[in-house]
Amino acid sequence: MIYITRRERFSAAHRMYREDLSDEENLRVFGKCSNPNWHGHNYILEVTVKGEIKKELGFFINLGTLKEIVTDVIISKLDHKNLNLEVSFMKGKIATTENLAISIWNELRPAIEQEGAFLHCIRIAETENNFVEYYG
Amino acid sequence: MIYITRRERFSAAHRMYREDLSDEENLRVFGKCSNPNWHGHNYILEVTVKGEIKKELGFFINLGTLKEIVTDVIISKLDHKNLNLEVSFMKGKIATTENLAISIWNELRPAIEQEGAFLHCIRIAETENNFVEYYG
Amino acid sequence: MIYITRRERFSAAHRMYREDLSDEENLRVFGKCSNPNWHGHNYILEVTVKGEIKKELGFFINLGTLKEIVTDVIISKLDHKNLNLEVSFMKGKIATTENLAISIWNELRPAIEQEGAFLHCIRIAETENNFVEYYG
Amino acid sequence: MIYITRRERFSAAHRMYREDLSDEENLRVFGKCSNPNWHGHNYILEVTVKGEIKKELGFFINLGTLKEIVTDVIISKLDHKNLNLEVSFMKGKIATTENLAISIWNELRPAIEQEGAFLHCIRIAETENNFVEYYG
Amino acid sequence: MIYITRRERFSAAHRMYREDLSDEENLRVFGKCSNPNWHGHNYILEVTVKGEIKKELGFFINLGTLKEIVTDVIISKLDHKNLNLEVSFMKGKIATTENLAISIWNELRPAIEQEGAFLHCIRIAETENNFVEYYG
Amino acid sequence: MIYITRRERFSAAHRMYREDLSDEENLRVFGKCSNPNWHGHNYILEVTVKGEIKKELGFFINLGTLKEIVTDVIISKLDHKNLNLEVSFMKGKIATTENLAISIWNELRPAIEQEGAFLHCIRIAETENNFVEYYG
Repeated sequence: MIYITRRERFSAAHRMYREDLSDEENLRVFGKCSNPNWHGHNYILEVTVKGEIKKELGFFINLGTLKEIVTDVIISKLDHKNLNLEVSFMKGKIATTENLAISIWNELRPAIEQEGAFLHCIRIAETENNFVEYYG
Repeated sequence: MIYITRRERFSAAHRMYREDLSDEENLRVFGKCSNPNWHGHNYILEVTVKGEIKKELGFFINLGTLKEIVTDVIISKLDHKNLNLEVSFMKGKIATTENLAISIWNELRPAIEQEGAFLHCIRIAETENNFVEYYG
Repeated sequence: MIYITRRERFSAAHRMYREDLSDEENLRVFGKCSNPNWHGHNYILEVTVKGEIKKELGFFINLGTLKEIVTDVIISKLDHKNLNLEVSFMKGKIATTENLAISIWNELRPAIEQEGAFLHCIRIAETENNFVEYYG
Repeated sequence: MIYITRRERFSAAHRMYREDLSDEENLRVFGKCSNPNWHGHNYILEVTVKGEIKKELGFFINLGTLKEIVTDVIISKLDHKNLNLEVSFMKGKIATTENLAISIWNELRPAIEQEGAFLHCIRIAETENNFVEYYG
Repeated sequence: MIYITRRERFSAAHRMYREDLSDEENLRVFGKCSNPNWHGHNYILEVTVKGEIKKELGFFINLGTLKEIVTDVIISKLDHKNLNLEVSFMKGKIATTENLAISIWNELRPAIEQEGAFLHCIRIAETENNFVEYYG
Repeated sequence: MIYITRRERFSAAHRMYREDLSDEENLRVFGKCSNPNWHGHNYILEVTVKGEIKKELGFFINLGTLKEIVTDVIISKLDHKNLNLEVSFMKGKIATTENLAISIWNELRPAIEQEGAFLHCIRIAETENNFVEYYG
């Protein structure tokens, strides 16, 4: 088994809040991240897939193919978007990095497996001081 | 003369657009950065000041003082905010990194000069692939 | 299960040596890191905790809480300190990054578990070219 | 068990291709990486080893020893070289980062185990946007 | 005047040598960089241009336009290429980073000036430990 | 004129204080940086030199020569040392990054000029959030 990781970036706006709470209550639970006027980040996404090397290729998934999948299935839907308002697979979920990682896992897995590879890890860094990892 | 730079970060939402243009026209001029639902960035701000070392201190401005000024005058007003809606010194300006750099220069200069130092450069990185510098 | 990591930094002095050895013997065992006049580093600490997302929050531990714990329990005791002379939980131990990682694990675990989360990994980078990881 | 990682770098030329294919066919399979005139990278190698701390040392392998092993066994053979033409342990293999990681694992393991430690992971970053990991 | 910088990357092979010298003499002058079998790097290019902000746009050159120019005029000709054999504007020159910076300046200037902006600096990092700057 | 920069690193202990002040007074002036038990940093030094390219070489100073000079004249005297106690060219000066930059400039200039090049800038980063520059 060998692991290969593709790193992509997207810039998005978001807000952490619950619709059933007032702005004051959201502020108490989510802090400044609940600002009703939004804020945003340069998110860094790392997608790790694993598989067994095909001897005639020296790899199990073409890096170009992996890049294309991540771009088409994920980045094109998140980059320069509002995570709360414009991303279908985040509808009804609190827009935390944790929920984002799980949703990206669910979106990517079928496309990765169709290539005969296995999704291993979704890693999202929200700032240089915090990141989230999900292994399914 | 010696130069000292303090690096700070802020995460904010913004949109590049002109009020007198339609969404379609804004899209043509500003591209995906004009998304009416906002997007955002982790901005990296570097403030460079210059001065002559005081022999009895080994510096001309205390780094702690510099940090405090940048935090109070700038970061507290930009971090987790919407650059278009919530930042008084960006009112009426297109929310580009270029305009942001000039506005930060104007906000910071009096506070820096009050410390007997000179503002030399405002540098803002919007993503890892582009940054703006302003020298007054 | 989801994993979240908080990154913090501290600048400290240290020396690697054994009290029962002479300076010459320490130099042979620990090299330049045994300098009796101390040296120091900008250490980078990454604390990874894991847990199950609470649906009503979108996370299992508030990042602000995690930051506060790491700062209170660890960073406040290490930053701008001498690891050999001033850190109670390093007393009697050789001040290697390896021992530091294990000690930080032991200090942090109760506070993390009190929040209903699990400590997963302590990672400390001593320079850009070496880092240590401990998983308990 | 504790894990320690040493990071080293090497700059090398390579080409991804199969001798039994024409340049056109190689281009179809390997893309621009098959350029017959070569291209190159600044590869970043991270070698992670694990072991149990010796109480009298505060570590299980001297970082200087680890650095020396990685330099002697690997870096000296790859840095400023052509991975296809000049590296004996890559002979007959397609010069992908995946194959390189496995080959480095095989070269390094005996030397690491001779020090009483265990090789845990070989990680190679080819660019800032992709890296490969191999755990044996 | 405001300065904006676009960062791009390219991976290329090269060799430093003079045709009128033997391999041994080239080795003495250029060291391991003269390896006749080539080596390579992930070069990082930063192009800084300057101009006066147009009030109706908030910038003087569209970042998308700048990116397109740098990609078309430079990156497409260098990425995954051999700097000695395949780059027309490096023909007859020793393939040092210094010569590369000057050549890129000469190639880029007309395209930048056609946009009503001024080229200010070409910065190329060859490794994380050395970079070259040229201001015309 | 072209500029080339060499980046080197050193890890050192230091303390900011004046001998004529008490510990309490030093604490008031220099904050936690005055800790009598020392602290330390991974300093990053960037030395920029300028000159005119020699056509027969493609550079004006060999990068290997520059590295050797910086290592011999500076790094060997600072790395794993105590800046206050062990560095002859810092004797009698407050161990600030500002004073360090000026002292390094004075130490390096003769050696650089002996190579027919000009010293342009000394840049020292003390942490990822602050750095100092000196241009003579």
